[in-house]
Amino acid sequence: MTDAINAFIPGPRITIDGARDGPLAGLTFAAKDLFDVAGYPTGGGNHDWARSNPVPTKHAWAVQTLLDAGAKLIGKTITDEVSLGILGENAFDGTPLNTKAPDRVPGGSSSGSAAAVAAGLCDTALGTDTGGSVRVPASFCGLYGIRPTHGRLDVTGMLPQAPSSDTTGWFDRDADTFACVSSVLLGETIADTLPTRLIVAVDAFGFADAAVAAALQPMVAKLATLIGSAREEMMAPQGLSVWSRAQRTLQPHEAWQTFKPWVERDNPRMAFNVARGLVAGSTIPESDRSWAELMRQEARARMAYLLPQGTILCLPTTPFPAPKKGLSLPVLGPMRDRIGCLCAQGGLTGVPQVSIPGATVDGLPIGLSIIGGRGTDAMLVAVALAMEVAK
Amino acid sequence: MTDAINAFIPGPRITIDGARDGPLAGLTFAAKDLFDVAGYPTGGGNHDWARSNPVPTKHAWAVQTLLDAGAKLIGKTITDEVSLGILGENAFDGTPLNTKAPDRVPGGSSSGSAAAVAAGLCDTALGTDTGGSVRVPASFCGLYGIRPTHGRLDVTGMLPQAPSSDTTGWFDRDADTFACVSSVLLGETIADTLPTRLIVAVDAFGFADAAVAAALQPMVAKLATLIGSAREEMMAPQGLSVWSRAQRTLQPHEAWQTFKPWVERDNPRMAFNVARGLVAGSTIPESDRSWAELMRQEARARMAYLLPQGTILCLPTTPFPAPKKGLSLPVLGPMRDRIGCLCAQGGLTGVPQVSIPGATVDGLPIGLSIIGGRGTDAMLVAVALAMEVAK
Repeated sequence: MTDAINAFIPGPRITIDGARDGPLAGLTFAAKDLFDVAGYPTGGGNHDWARSNPVPTKHAWAVQTLLDAGAKLIGKTITDEVSLGILGENAFDGTPLNTKAPDRVPGGSSSGSAAAVAAGLCDTALGTDTGGSVRVPASFCGLYGIRPTHGRLDVTGMLPQAPSSDTTGWFDRDADTFACVSSVLLGETIADTLPTRLIVAVDAFGFADAAVAAALQPMVAKLATLIGSAREEMMAPQGLSVWSRAQRTLQPHEAWQTFKPWVERDNPRMAFNVARGLVAGSTIPESDRSWAELMRQEARARMAYLLPQGTILCLPTTPFPAPKKGLSLPVLGPMRDRIGCLCAQGGLTGVPQVSIPGATVDGLPIGLSIIGGRGTDAMLVAVALAMEVAK
Repeated sequence: MTDAINAFIPGPRITIDGARDGPLAGLTFAAKDLFDVAGYPTGGGNHDWARSNPVPTKHAWAVQTLLDAGAKLIGKTITDEVSLGILGENAFDGTPLNTKAPDRVPGGSSSGSAAAVAAGLCDTALGTDTGGSVRVPASFCGLYGIRPTHGRLDVTGMLPQAPSSDTTGWFDRDADTFACVSSVLLGETIADTLPTRLIVAVDAFGFADAAVAAALQPMVAKLATLIGSAREEMMAPQGLSVWSRAQRTLQPHEAWQTFKPWVERDNPRMAFNVARGLVAGSTIPESDRSWAELMRQEARARMAYLLPQGTILCLPTTPFPAPKKGLSLPVLGPMRDRIGCLCAQGGLTGVPQVSIPGATVDGLPIGLSIIGGRGTDAMLVAVALAMEVAK
């Protein structure tokens, strides 16, 4: 069963017992192979990564925090190469199974973590989200997933991609576990205070497939009932595609800065499209980056204006459910670009986002996302919990 | 010994006896893994190439021709990935040993064929030369090597790269074997008529390292004596770098056309710099290509003017001897570009070129090349033979 899921990296399974007592005692977790586990090479999803990177001597902060809270590590999971991918098809390690949609991709780059939780191989799992790498697999696999406020969690021991957008996230099957794990990693009690105003991001819903927008309506209605006040607004007046363009300028440029020394020293083997992404990052002109930085400021100002204390915003996590496996690059390119239009706001503005499962299109999961102002992570988790209770 | 050379592709050695009689009876040969051998997948130097390409049912023309002439195939050799490389470092199969310079690269992309002949594992070996892939390893490994007139040999069963520049070439340790094999593959007797005029390409000698130009002087002097008349001329009045720029426009564009269907369908794993080359080929604007086509016409006209019947031209095959193994990409990039400046004329103009061994710089081999007008391949081989006799 485990092998059919293909969630874990090749080789002997890495397991570490958690602390005897703690809020997560009895729970199991997996960690994306971008998180350091002391004594084991961090694989990074690329077989040439570990070769010239030292074996870590300390656990990553997030791994240590879950162990200290009593959870047991039961394995490291497959990731898109050095987190550069959004679909979860790794040319070296294969594609983790999306148990809710076996002929579809699981989403990436935190593909194995999402697959492991969805298949019940563990209770929770760590991922990373720079441009959507937790949110997208959460949506595709029908899981709770969080991208916390940028800069809130300690990312020590987590393989970076684009530091100004990188976050640590996690997946869970049920809202209670999600709340427990979130409380530990956020270091904050999940109170039962809910927001009082809901914004429905009309541009984001208009951008998604019509079937997705329709499938999410019951969840939006329940959310509106729960919160008591809803209004429609554009999230990105400048354009979702313009925000995405800014993120697709900043993030690949930063990723190139991160990986350039490795690439130039080791000339590593990588799937063509991963290399193409790095090459694209290496050729971005300074003028484009200056513009993108200004658009980032505008987007941050927009989010701060839209999301005062007590207000949250909802949008489809992804514009469509999981695509089929093995599609060709020219077919995947435009799909990736569309995903970017809904996800770019995370890396661009740094606000927290939770993807809530519960809807399907033709039997395929699709997530509804809620976003709040910086630091409202626990409140978003509380909303997810309240949605579950209100079922 | 064989394993230390690392000339052959992984897996069981492919051997096929040649015809009982024939001009090459008793000789052994190897074929670069871009040539079809019936019943065996053509690997192409990339582990994802064979996956979706059918196993050939016929030998490549060049392989069949050598077998028919009595030579025995004793193996298929390592190549740079899908012939896209000039140094001979394959990230999947490793670097064939340059026996004359063990800490140096063998040159590529026909790296294994050159290494096998240089190490004495076979008498002759087939390579391909699009942008220098026979000439460069011949120079680096101290071998005879030929890039025939473009379009002269049947390239059926040879994995293409850039068809308007692709040629089939071969390597030999001694001039006699080189003449025998050349006679068979060219389908022409190697007569003893020599050219009567020699041009020394001053721009090419000026472009090479001073130590290389100096090391080749005795060979140039011998050549001048043999031919009886020598004058200095620029080979490329427009600039070696301008010719190279044209070739670096046409060749990668064509290579992208060749490999695009495979890359887009299979998203193959490849070394970063190989992928980067393909990406570069995919982004060349039409306006650059139009210019490069015009420069190709100018370069062809120049070669036709310089090389009437009875005239040959000489130049350093490479601007420097083999670089060290394992250099980083930023160090290798400018070296590759310099090699391109001396080699571009082959693909650009289609004239035949023979690299003759015999000089060294600090103990490292360096080749002297001779070039003639289209169709003068046999005459160039005759010059190589006469140089050997004149020793």
